[in-house]
Amino acid sequence: MDTASDPLVIFTPSGKRGRVTAGTSVLAAARKLGVDLDSVCGGRGICSKCQVVPGYGQFSKHGVTVADDALSEWNAVEARYDEKRGLKTGRRLGCQAQILRDVVIDVPAGSQVHRQVVRKAATQRDITLDPATRLYLVEVDEPDMHTPTGDLQRLNRALAAQWEIGPVTADLPVLQRLQPALRQGNWQVTVAVHQDHQGAPRLVDIWPGFYEGGLYGLAIDLGSTTIAAHLCDLKTGEVVASSGIMNPQIRFGEDLMSRVSYAMMNPGGDAEMTRAVRGAMDDLVTEIATEAEIEPRAIVEAVIVCNPVMHHLLLGIDPVELGQAPFALATSDSLSLAASDLDLSAMNAAARAYLLPCIAGHVGADAAAVALSEMPGQSDDLVLVVDVGTNAEILLGDRSGVLACSSPTGPAFEGAQISSGQRAAPGAIEAIRIDPETKEPRFRVIGCDLWSDEDGFAEAIATTGITGICGSGIIEAVAEMRMAGLLDASGLIGSAAQAGTERLQPEGRTQAYLIHEDADRRITVTQSDIRAIQLAKSALYAGARLLMDERGVDRVDRVVLAGAFGAHISPKHAMVIGMIPDVPLDKVTSAGNAAGTGARIALLDRSARTGIEGIVREIRKVETAIEPRFQEHFVAANAIPHATDMFPELARIVTLPHVAFNTAGLSGGRARKRQKRT
Amino acid sequence: MDTASDPLVIFTPSGKRGRVTAGTSVLAAARKLGVDLDSVCGGRGICSKCQVVPGYGQFSKHGVTVADDALSEWNAVEARYDEKRGLKTGRRLGCQAQILRDVVIDVPAGSQVHRQVVRKAATQRDITLDPATRLYLVEVDEPDMHTPTGDLQRLNRALAAQWEIGPVTADLPVLQRLQPALRQGNWQVTVAVHQDHQGAPRLVDIWPGFYEGGLYGLAIDLGSTTIAAHLCDLKTGEVVASSGIMNPQIRFGEDLMSRVSYAMMNPGGDAEMTRAVRGAMDDLVTEIATEAEIEPRAIVEAVIVCNPVMHHLLLGIDPVELGQAPFALATSDSLSLAASDLDLSAMNAAARAYLLPCIAGHVGADAAAVALSEMPGQSDDLVLVVDVGTNAEILLGDRSGVLACSSPTGPAFEGAQISSGQRAAPGAIEAIRIDPETKEPRFRVIGCDLWSDEDGFAEAIATTGITGICGSGIIEAVAEMRMAGLLDASGLIGSAAQAGTERLQPEGRTQAYLIHEDADRRITVTQSDIRAIQLAKSALYAGARLLMDERGVDRVDRVVLAGAFGAHISPKHAMVIGMIPDVPLDKVTSAGNAAGTGARIALLDRSARTGIEGIVREIRKVETAIEPRFQEHFVAANAIPHATDMFPELARIVTLPHVAFNTAGLSGGRARKRQKRT
Repeated sequence: MDTASDPLVIFTPSGKRGRVTAGTSVLAAARKLGVDLDSVCGGRGICSKCQVVPGYGQFSKHGVTVADDALSEWNAVEARYDEKRGLKTGRRLGCQAQILRDVVIDVPAGSQVHRQVVRKAATQRDITLDPATRLYLVEVDEPDMHTPTGDLQRLNRALAAQWEIGPVTADLPVLQRLQPALRQGNWQVTVAVHQDHQGAPRLVDIWPGFYEGGLYGLAIDLGSTTIAAHLCDLKTGEVVASSGIMNPQIRFGEDLMSRVSYAMMNPGGDAEMTRAVRGAMDDLVTEIATEAEIEPRAIVEAVIVCNPVMHHLLLGIDPVELGQAPFALATSDSLSLAASDLDLSAMNAAARAYLLPCIAGHVGADAAAVALSEMPGQSDDLVLVVDVGTNAEILLGDRSGVLACSSPTGPAFEGAQISSGQRAAPGAIEAIRIDPETKEPRFRVIGCDLWSDEDGFAEAIATTGITGICGSGIIEAVAEMRMAGLLDASGLIGSAAQAGTERLQPEGRTQAYLIHEDADRRITVTQSDIRAIQLAKSALYAGARLLMDERGVDRVDRVVLAGAFGAHISPKHAMVIGMIPDVPLDKVTSAGNAAGTGARIALLDRSARTGIEGIVREIRKVETAIEPRFQEHFVAANAIPHATDMFPELARIVTLPHVAFNTAGLSGGRARKRQKRT
Repeated sequence: MDTASDPLVIFTPSGKRGRVTAGTSVLAAARKLGVDLDSVCGGRGICSKCQVVPGYGQFSKHGVTVADDALSEWNAVEARYDEKRGLKTGRRLGCQAQILRDVVIDVPAGSQVHRQVVRKAATQRDITLDPATRLYLVEVDEPDMHTPTGDLQRLNRALAAQWEIGPVTADLPVLQRLQPALRQGNWQVTVAVHQDHQGAPRLVDIWPGFYEGGLYGLAIDLGSTTIAAHLCDLKTGEVVASSGIMNPQIRFGEDLMSRVSYAMMNPGGDAEMTRAVRGAMDDLVTEIATEAEIEPRAIVEAVIVCNPVMHHLLLGIDPVELGQAPFALATSDSLSLAASDLDLSAMNAAARAYLLPCIAGHVGADAAAVALSEMPGQSDDLVLVVDVGTNAEILLGDRSGVLACSSPTGPAFEGAQISSGQRAAPGAIEAIRIDPETKEPRFRVIGCDLWSDEDGFAEAIATTGITGICGSGIIEAVAEMRMAGLLDASGLIGSAAQAGTERLQPEGRTQAYLIHEDADRRITVTQSDIRAIQLAKSALYAGARLLMDERGVDRVDRVVLAGAFGAHISPKHAMVIGMIPDVPLDKVTSAGNAAGTGARIALLDRSARTGIEGIVREIRKVETAIEPRFQEHFVAANAIPHATDMFPELARIVTLPHVAFNTAGLSGGRARKRQKRT
């Protein structure tokens, strides 16, 4: 065979290049040059992870011409692989193809170990795929009676020699499977090894021979109301299934403080709530594995984010200290533990669980996950990140530093404690417009793209019906009522006579606005709904304002709304009700479920765990509960949009009518009484 | 106060000396000079561990004269302590007494952290007390809302500042107790921290304020037949209680190979045996804590030694591979794991368990423990260490290296498979002498110091009776029969006519020697008992001989008999039956339960764990099961004492009669047939 001596190899897209001895395999050359080319089987032609695309012809950019015989011909291994599973045209197995002459080798994304997982929104950074748990195919030496060593010790020797990892430790359930697997696989086994940034590498699982199944991880967002999980393929980073379940702790209390009270008032109440949430999470794991049609054993990791109260209840720690100043966490650092310690028995018996660090007693691992997803500390302009939920987590910062606080908004934004409120589900009103002239409403419900005044609406919603108002719907309703002059700046609903529409109807001593009425139900916005929204938005705004004070600014450059619900909030309406500080409308973006995304990042990229632990240490925490200015901001924020703060950007696009319905001063007094923190 | 500037302080027995600023406490001076002075409370005058004895007057050896006012006067803390608990005359609390002038300070053994635990026998090294789990009293900062940190993080900060240890991790059950303990103790807590040579320090337990209870550990010798445990005070090294229990696995098979067979023949049989042994160990923990009148929670560690089959069954690993060549262990390294992983629920929930490393598939952690106790590798002369049990572990070595093997002696040495055999218990014959003239026996039974021919014997044994022969008794009986000419070199018992005593009585076609007869029972040594002892002693001798071959020697310098039973063997009788190679009688010593002692050393001195792990790597293993020379040695060793090897040392003290009872050649043929390994 005619070969060049020490041919040049250029890898794309990395641009790494170097000379290798003729006959070197592409995989070996990649390793030598530090090119990111994957392999699970270590060059045995089994796993096909090292597929590459050689380029032929002239590459003036690289200054090389690649001859047709630059690589060795297809060999038997490649032919067999192609026959068995098919190799895309133009592809070679990197472990089989030998470099004979100068060549350009492209490593497709699917063959990179640390490939990027593309996130959709343009503002979001891609995720680097570098999971803590990976598969390795190893050939283990057979035991020798004359130099006796344990099978685990020989496995470790093989891992060190063939993969330069380990030594691994093995929990008993895995150790118990080691000997049969080695013998069944004729001394060739695939092992799943977990190595995060803490502790020694661990053997998570073992299969005889080459294991063809995947490895999966769960990114779990454990909220006060719902538990959401994304099942991710640790090989591709893809979300292969998502599922959610109600947090069964709701029966012990709707919001966090009522659960803390339950624990305080009922001996063993904390343990009861711990059992409930662990059980629900375990059910969710089973459900999501069934949905994705994978073996639960293939789920080897979980990353969990949650607020501090959920954090403690999940860990089995009485949350009583979180219910009173100084709101001391039992532990604030991240935790890496066995999933079985959390009774997550549905997944792999040796699966690991990672909990992100908490920022403070009121600012949890969920806020840390939002910080990981949104990276306010890497922002050039000053960004306010608001994670809207039963408790709002608020981050403010840029490259010069990040501040954080939480604010007890209560569940009104999620449709709870609203007379016609419901959670976001088909049939719920999610958007509403009120004609400023006629004061007539039109609306859209979840599950139908038509507005209520469009043709075919009645037919389209026939199955779901119109069942209530969800969180984004109630925000729009309040804002639209304000814009249509049905509501004054103090939050008082006018009477039919004052505002000029029969849709305003008395309810006791106050008024309610009728949105929809049919045989089944009557959907209105009542005075008490307005008050609930006012309390929630005041708390949110006051928290943001407090961070701005700390930072010494009167305005922010942009606002990111996070939380599953944040994705559905209309920025304009949010600003009309004064939920968020005044910024140009196009500077308000949604990050979707940023906490869940943060969990997914920490699941897929172990270096992100070190990252967020460092970030959390640098974040400055502001405690709203004991800050007198929080109360001042809260009171001032009660008006719609605000009693004192100017909203010049809002004024550019909306002119709010000057109306005032308070004739007796009664409702104003009531509102003040209710401004106390719940 | 008139003080010297920078007075000189000399500590005894260490001899460490140096100058300190006048007014420095003795404890601070000790720390500065690297003197081993204990303290749990860190100088708060609570724990009294730092007691010292100042010396006054002239010390010509040290070149100092100590004035009466060399130390500060008794202060209120010392007075209170003395009143409450009493301080021995002449003692001071090192944390309270300040050095004002030149002084000599003696640190009594009880105040040293790394004090020596004295072992009784002169040949044995003392144990350095340096347990993996220790207590620390710490003052933890209260939480600060403005710089929020978790309680665990503040505890770690305190441990680092006050004790220079940590950071510790905490398992969930301990973490769950952290917050209440800190608040109940008003931010002063005592913590038990486990730090062995592997892994990060762990928080094992926490108590509000100063914990006055002790910490205990268990040294467990898990044998095939019995499980023995010593409860040790980790502060003093003392054994405070010892207890034993039968290994319930006996119902699955008397010896190891029959248990391996049980696992092979019965699906789930291994798990059944695992449950049985773990349950028994857990019961033993409860029992020993009750006996010692301590809280089981105070037991924070266990060190376990056992043979490889017990090792695997305890860990829940199917022992099937240990039943067939190449006798591969699932894991041979030492293991540090949670005691709860072994279902040891009676002790502290966060207690740790340490298993010594195994040497080979037939030479287990028990042999490693014997090596740790007897240290053959540090012997100047060539020592043979024999741990006698159902399986004998044999070590041969000196400073130039150590060899190890195991030999399947079977249970005959423990009195099993012997017609009148029983385990060592009151009533069992443990010593016997046969008059060479009259051929009449006299004997001693366990529980009575009189010989059977002494006055008062009958009364003394009235309650126990004479119930059978234990292991040491049967060895003496066989040896005495040989010396009295009742037994020939081939192991054949002569008839009454041949040997001249009516105590020889026919049993079928063979003879038996009557030792004792009463209304309840008839105690004899039968031909088949002799054969069982011959098999056992041949296996033991052959193993020793194989190691001598490997080493290239024909004799050893000394022999150490280990094992609980080894302590009771008469060296002369052992040599007469040819159990051990010929050495001068005074060169045969007993090490008692050396495996148990090894476990105790590893429990009390964590550095011994690193030590034994290194030693085990250096030991050369010899596998008897596949070694043809083992069979040759076994056959040659069947004769009493031996067919070919000379016993010159034995000949100096005993002259064995030349008798031969084989007239038909029948029994000899039978004996050969039975020489196959079981």
